[in-house]
Amino acid sequence: MKALLVIDMQVGSFSSKTPRFDADGVVQRINILLDYFRKQGNKIIFIQHDGTKENFLLHGTSDWKILPTIHQAENDIYIEKTANDSFYRTDLEKTLNANNINNLYITGCATDCCVNSTVQTALVKDFNMTIVKDCHTTADRPNFKAKDLIDFHNWLWQNLTPTEGRIQLKALKELI
Amino acid sequence: MKALLVIDMQVGSFSSKTPRFDADGVVQRINILLDYFRKQGNKIIFIQHDGTKENFLLHGTSDWKILPTIHQAENDIYIEKTANDSFYRTDLEKTLNANNINNLYITGCATDCCVNSTVQTALVKDFNMTIVKDCHTTADRPNFKAKDLIDFHNWLWQNLTPTEGRIQLKALKELI
Repeated sequence: MKALLVIDMQVGSFSSKTPRFDADGVVQRINILLDYFRKQGNKIIFIQHDGTKENFLLHGTSDWKILPTIHQAENDIYIEKTANDSFYRTDLEKTLNANNINNLYITGCATDCCVNSTVQTALVKDFNMTIVKDCHTTADRPNFKAKDLIDFHNWLWQNLTPTEGRIQLKALKELI
Repeated sequence: MKALLVIDMQVGSFSSKTPRFDADGVVQRINILLDYFRKQGNKIIFIQHDGTKENFLLHGTSDWKILPTIHQAENDIYIEKTANDSFYRTDLEKTLNANNINNLYITGCATDCCVNSTVQTALVKDFNMTIVKDCHTTADRPNFKAKDLIDFHNWLWQNLTPTEGRIQLKALKELI
């Protein structure tokens, strides 16, 4: 069984303070994948950051909500997290196991923070992953352009040592 | 109780194939820290990659050995790993808990691979960490200079969301 993880595609993460590289394109491509996964009967899991302790993305506020442009549907699963890693003190692992999911498709924001931390933990929990290389994004960082960081992480993930789980990188068009 | 982690400072990781940024300087600074930690009676833990499944750094070969320029002593602990993350299927966590260590000082190679993966897992295991920002290194990657990747990761780790554990970044001279 497969699951599509959509990490932190929240209103407050896409403000003018942290412009995300190709945000509209990423949203559009994630939507194509969401529609496709739903048609195939696979699980959709939205990861939603509750940044109360950072005074950012406070639970229930408009900033905390999933972007209204993202296609959501009734049977989607929502999991709230408080760390970069989506597994940290959440029901993600339990939910995946309960649904016999060992194959994660990873998308979302931010490439170098919550996406990377989640990938690192999923790998040592022995999940197989397909990271959709044109469906995650970040912002410019000190001395680094967002686009370069996306390319770097796509390279890095491809080169991590496999555990019992393996990572593959695919573009959207290779998946649908 | 504190422990100094020295990750993958092995002969085969410092070959001419992957020249590491400021390798001599990093070795010199790690040695200063090793000598200091030993004097204070703190634990020294060498993490050593066994890359048998990657056909690289094979257990027992000269490539697999810790660099002869690194100061080793009789009571140091050696932990072998087979993934990027030093906790994956190793005795690291058990060793830290058995010695009441919740304060890890992180050094080694490579910044973006085994050091980052270990930092990510240590954080979600709620360890406090001091990452010694001038005591880890990597090689140039496609489109990225090693020095820039070191700076980027020092920025990233400082900006990760704390768990029960916290990360601080310090230069060697702030520690001794």
